[in-house]
Amino acid sequence: METTIISVKNRLFEVPLPEVLSDAKHGDHTHFELVTSTITLENGMEGTGYTYTGGKGGRAIKAMLDYDLGPALVGKDATQIDEIYDFMEWHIHYVGRGGIASFAISAIDIALWDIKGKASEQPLWKMAGGVNNTCKAYCGGIDLMFPIEKLLKNMQSYMDKGFSAVKIKIGRENLDEDIERIKAVREFIGDDITFMVDANYSMTVEKAIECAERFKPYNITWFEEPIIPDNYKGYAEITEKTGVPLAMGENLHTIHEFEYAMEQSKLSFVQPDASNCGGVTGWLRAAKLAKENNIPVCSHGMQELHVSLVSSQENSGWLEVHSFPIDEYTTRPLVVENFRAVASDEPGTGVTFDWEKLASYEVETIGQPA
Amino acid sequence: METTIISVKNRLFEVPLPEVLSDAKHGDHTHFELVTSTITLENGMEGTGYTYTGGKGGRAIKAMLDYDLGPALVGKDATQIDEIYDFMEWHIHYVGRGGIASFAISAIDIALWDIKGKASEQPLWKMAGGVNNTCKAYCGGIDLMFPIEKLLKNMQSYMDKGFSAVKIKIGRENLDEDIERIKAVREFIGDDITFMVDANYSMTVEKAIECAERFKPYNITWFEEPIIPDNYKGYAEITEKTGVPLAMGENLHTIHEFEYAMEQSKLSFVQPDASNCGGVTGWLRAAKLAKENNIPVCSHGMQELHVSLVSSQENSGWLEVHSFPIDEYTTRPLVVENFRAVASDEPGTGVTFDWEKLASYEVETIGQPA
Ligand SMILES: [Mg+2]
Ligand SMILES: [Mg+2]
Repeated sequence: METTIISVKNRLFEVPLPEVLSDAKHGDHTHFELVTSTITLENGMEGTGYTYTGGKGGRAIKAMLDYDLGPALVGKDATQIDEIYDFMEWHIHYVGRGGIASFAISAIDIALWDIKGKASEQPLWKMAGGVNNTCKAYCGGIDLMFPIEKLLKNMQSYMDKGFSAVKIKIGRENLDEDIERIKAVREFIGDDITFMVDANYSMTVEKAIECAERFKPYNITWFEEPIIPDNYKGYAEITEKTGVPLAMGENLHTIHEFEYAMEQSKLSFVQPDASNCGGVTGWLRAAKLAKENNIPVCSHGMQELHVSLVSSQENSGWLEVHSFPIDEYTTRPLVVENFRAVASDEPGTGVTFDWEKLASYEVETIGQPA
Repeated sequence: METTIISVKNRLFEVPLPEVLSDAKHGDHTHFELVTSTITLENGMEGTGYTYTGGKGGRAIKAMLDYDLGPALVGKDATQIDEIYDFMEWHIHYVGRGGIASFAISAIDIALWDIKGKASEQPLWKMAGGVNNTCKAYCGGIDLMFPIEKLLKNMQSYMDKGFSAVKIKIGRENLDEDIERIKAVREFIGDDITFMVDANYSMTVEKAIECAERFKPYNITWFEEPIIPDNYKGYAEITEKTGVPLAMGENLHTIHEFEYAMEQSKLSFVQPDASNCGGVTGWLRAAKLAKENNIPVCSHGMQELHVSLVSSQENSGWLEVHSFPIDEYTTRPLVVENFRAVASDEPGTGVTFDWEKLASYEVETIGQPA
């Protein structure tokens, strides 16, 4: 058949960051890992999907793509995206349901959507929902250990790039330091800039409640991942006791985990990441669930892809512009106009890698089975 | 320091099964994957841990051990098992919390317990709790597609090996066939043999309720994984509507997942697997939680290790004797006496691989970073 998958080629890149970045729970980041998956069909059509990590797990993801998923997809009809998605879930179920498997599945699924868009000559924002081609966007850095002066410079750089919303990391050992940083940022950016904070689940419920109470004077739009993602009911407790809007989702990998969060956590925003919740298909399922629960759907990481997804939805929330600059290695770094991010009109996902720019970061692995 | 880890060497084996085995959700099994991790200390002491899969994910597990966990453990004090456990959880948290990460962490943790036992000259059953050195045990096969005659022969072979408890797979498309098989087995084994069934989460809640009602005449000790493990509340619904005792746990990978099951699922038995829930440390945490909830703790797979763990606990349940015969590749295949499995008295985990027997099944991978 014309649309039969004839090959799945995967590549791993370790891309250095311009400086060492730290957050409350993942320590120092010196580079990020990018895993790409390029699928070719019988008719010569080609699509590329990808996923990324903060520096660990990339080889395991690539091994799963090379050995468990790729070979099993050869011969399948690439137009049957939902069937392939379900097939992948069951094929690696015993070692899956989250973790590495969800990253690997995501890369494949995004490649299939890229092909779908190219075949139908539609950009992702239209295929995914078509409500809009722009969305609200904010900049967030991995800046927990930046001295205040540097933190404020960073805020200025976001505004200089055309953004009117910012997020900082919190979660220092000493809560006073978090509050001091929040106060300094709010005073620096003024009242009109949207401002979120992200603790990367470094706090206990009790500390998160104290933190939320203390940052109330500073008009924080959301408090992201105050506690571990696994403690769904703990989120609800923080909301109930403080009234502060909570956000999470970057660590939810299966639709079931999104269901638990919707039922139990009283979130105000949800932030699925298509690189680790099942690609475009997984992200759209999470977005639908969010809509049914009247919650705006946001995103985490890889702004160059999520701009199309977040824009496309009726319950469109905020696009995170992340400090892993994957978009700098594509032919179209994120476009921002009138404080909003603008989706690509190119058929496919709108994400085309600049392979030459990436070439020197490629990591040799044993590759695919013969 | 004497007890500093100086190397972590991992190996992958693809071990063929004597025949193709099928269950309701994972399809055909032609071999199983065994991943071993051997840790060496400054003082020359050595311990080996391991994990296994039904045939997929082994290379991803090995990649994570080779690149993400192994190198990060060199230099740590091997006697600090709890600290290392927590370190591993956080080190790969972003790509973890279940899936491949939980298998990789398990292999390391088991190796550390092996060293601990050798250093203290204690067998695992004593270190883990010491309540007993024998436990109840049953045989279970991956026999969903066996014709009835072959299924009954299998039951006979279990009894010939000295077991008085058996389990079969159910979950055929047509429920009548499941019931027919259950009836045939009960008639064949008589009233005195303990009998469980396992649907490998192939059913809906409705079908599971119907199935449970229809197998009531056959005195089934537990109904294992009727539905997907993610649907914690669905388990409770089946229990409430039928009164049939339920079991699950082989697909629960984090302590949080065990907590959800304890709170929401009304289980009668829980079956953690040390190969995928964090090794001995993870298994003991799940066992403790089970005890607090007055639930007997059982096991899934790798009988040669679990015999010591299940025996050691006050709330000791049933040891599964699985049809992936890892124990045949050790120097001490499972010992059964008076219908009970007997734990090894050797210092360490009591599991010593017969590397020569395994040698021809070793899979070449790119190995560890230089
Ligand atoms: Mg975040
Ligand atoms: Mg089972």
